[in-house]
Amino acid sequence: MRKETGINRQIVLASRPKGKPTSENFKLLETPIPEPKESQVLLETLYLSLDPYMRGRMSDAPSYAAPVGLGEVMVGATVSRVVTSRHPKFKAGDLVMSYAGWQDYALSDGRDLTPLGDMPRPSLALGVLGMPGFTAYMGLMDIGQPKAGETLVVAAASGAVGSVVGQIGKIIGCRVVGIAGGKEKCRYVKEELGFDECLDHHGEGLPELLREACPKGIDIYFENVGGKVWDAVMPLLNTKARIPVCGLIADYNRTSLPEGPDRMGLLMGTILRLRLRMQGFIINMDYGHRFPEFRQPMEQWVREGRVKFREDVVEGLEKAPEAFMGMLEGANFGKLVVKV
Amino acid sequence: MRKETGINRQIVLASRPKGKPTSENFKLLETPIPEPKESQVLLETLYLSLDPYMRGRMSDAPSYAAPVGLGEVMVGATVSRVVTSRHPKFKAGDLVMSYAGWQDYALSDGRDLTPLGDMPRPSLALGVLGMPGFTAYMGLMDIGQPKAGETLVVAAASGAVGSVVGQIGKIIGCRVVGIAGGKEKCRYVKEELGFDECLDHHGEGLPELLREACPKGIDIYFENVGGKVWDAVMPLLNTKARIPVCGLIADYNRTSLPEGPDRMGLLMGTILRLRLRMQGFIINMDYGHRFPEFRQPMEQWVREGRVKFREDVVEGLEKAPEAFMGMLEGANFGKLVVKV
Repeated sequence: MRKETGINRQIVLASRPKGKPTSENFKLLETPIPEPKESQVLLETLYLSLDPYMRGRMSDAPSYAAPVGLGEVMVGATVSRVVTSRHPKFKAGDLVMSYAGWQDYALSDGRDLTPLGDMPRPSLALGVLGMPGFTAYMGLMDIGQPKAGETLVVAAASGAVGSVVGQIGKIIGCRVVGIAGGKEKCRYVKEELGFDECLDHHGEGLPELLREACPKGIDIYFENVGGKVWDAVMPLLNTKARIPVCGLIADYNRTSLPEGPDRMGLLMGTILRLRLRMQGFIINMDYGHRFPEFRQPMEQWVREGRVKFREDVVEGLEKAPEAFMGMLEGANFGKLVVKV
Repeated sequence: MRKETGINRQIVLASRPKGKPTSENFKLLETPIPEPKESQVLLETLYLSLDPYMRGRMSDAPSYAAPVGLGEVMVGATVSRVVTSRHPKFKAGDLVMSYAGWQDYALSDGRDLTPLGDMPRPSLALGVLGMPGFTAYMGLMDIGQPKAGETLVVAAASGAVGSVVGQIGKIIGCRVVGIAGGKEKCRYVKEELGFDECLDHHGEGLPELLREACPKGIDIYFENVGGKVWDAVMPLLNTKARIPVCGLIADYNRTSLPEGPDRMGLLMGTILRLRLRMQGFIINMDYGHRFPEFRQPMEQWVREGRVKFREDVVEGLEKAPEAFMGMLEGANFGKLVVKV
């Protein structure tokens, strides 16, 4: 259903997925546009960010954040415009970054809003200059600690986070090898983003191709995927390698443990023998206070064209569930945003 | 065979173990006592340290250090006395820390020797004031980063490393829970070393006992064991927990992966979800330059009786293989040294 005057479309969680989400798990509601109270603003969503972490919020397994409740609006970062303001710091027409979720309109008391200054394109606040870019920067710099001449391997290399990780690695002077799904993504990563190499995990023989692409082994692996990509990476890790664990999209729809043998002890032994550092992180919780440290260099790199980006823009809020389900299968190409 | 005048007994690696080492893997040779050349000293071994890492050196699987060659003297740290010196910095009678290995006499060019000052007991240079104490200190302080009020769990709690880890944890103000093998070791850890609790992994129901002993979850787990101890720890880890991976003695004699399901992805997912930091380390390679930082406070704690220690002294070099094999099964009680 298209956007209509006077109606607030909301996409709510109808049921919790078992394994892959399906369209049954989402429901589109029509509700009245809410009225802002004293100290509130009414926001209209312009762009909604779709990100892999949302799969976790659909589940009620223990996690770092409370799950979305059944019947509640799906969470998500947005670029929104202030429609009416009863808040002293905002006025109608202001563009802001918000967490308005999967809906046309939302109220805010201003605390979760970041004014968008003179950004080249407002949707960048959801990508390279927003949470995905910040994730790439801090995970690589703080946990990965890259040095010139080291080999950096990046999973999901054409994605919103991976593409930025690899480009920062090149600026630092690393040999950067990407892994992506499909020939066109690999071509883009290598030719347009300037990675040294990019391997297609849809093809055969990833372990051998990766070994050839990393003749000096792997010093940093930025983990976004897990599964078979991790299986190919693990035997190539160098002593003292660093592994920022940012995501495991290959496992998000998994409902049971894979068959044995049990390799957990093998991983522990590898951590010991190679003196690995493996560290998980959640960008806003672990690094929220360090946003300015990221924003200044990244804006400059984007302005100079040293960090490129690609958006995959889907038109219409009603398309969000389909686009989100596709993302979990790797169907998007670049940062996925919904133009609402 | 007992020590005899004019003979250098050497214990060499006769064959590589498959699984548990046996007495067949060792051979005792009698060789002439070597003569020091210009700039060398002749050392007589007083104490030989036996440590779990030696199991790794008996194997030719890829590791951080070259394996002991077949027919070569087993490696090991020693407290030795200079018998004759042709080196300007040492004189007959000096006590030194060395890596003379499993033999009565050895030559050295002086580079691997550390003079022992006024140490309360020379064998402490192999324990609380030497490599095991240093391992405990740096692994806990640098990777574990303990804070007062946090819960620290220590595997192999009565051992040379674990006993020191837990006592430092108490000095810092942590709740410290040890895990050890057998009632007498647990009594010692709790009553004599002052841990808050110590659980016997030989008994039934370790997962439940550990849960009761850690009502606020686990913030730091000092990993020395792996296997079933790790299985009990993993579900209790708190968000942002730190896991220095120092050893995995339960796995050292393993010859194949255990049966499934495959929990490697489960561990990766736990690292991500809880934002864990897991890090392996090898004390001399990673922290060798920071020895003074450890030595000063540790000497003081030992002098003040705030860090206690226990030695398990075996008499006679010929007993070393048996004592070493017993240690891998947890038969020792305290830091295992051979009085040669």
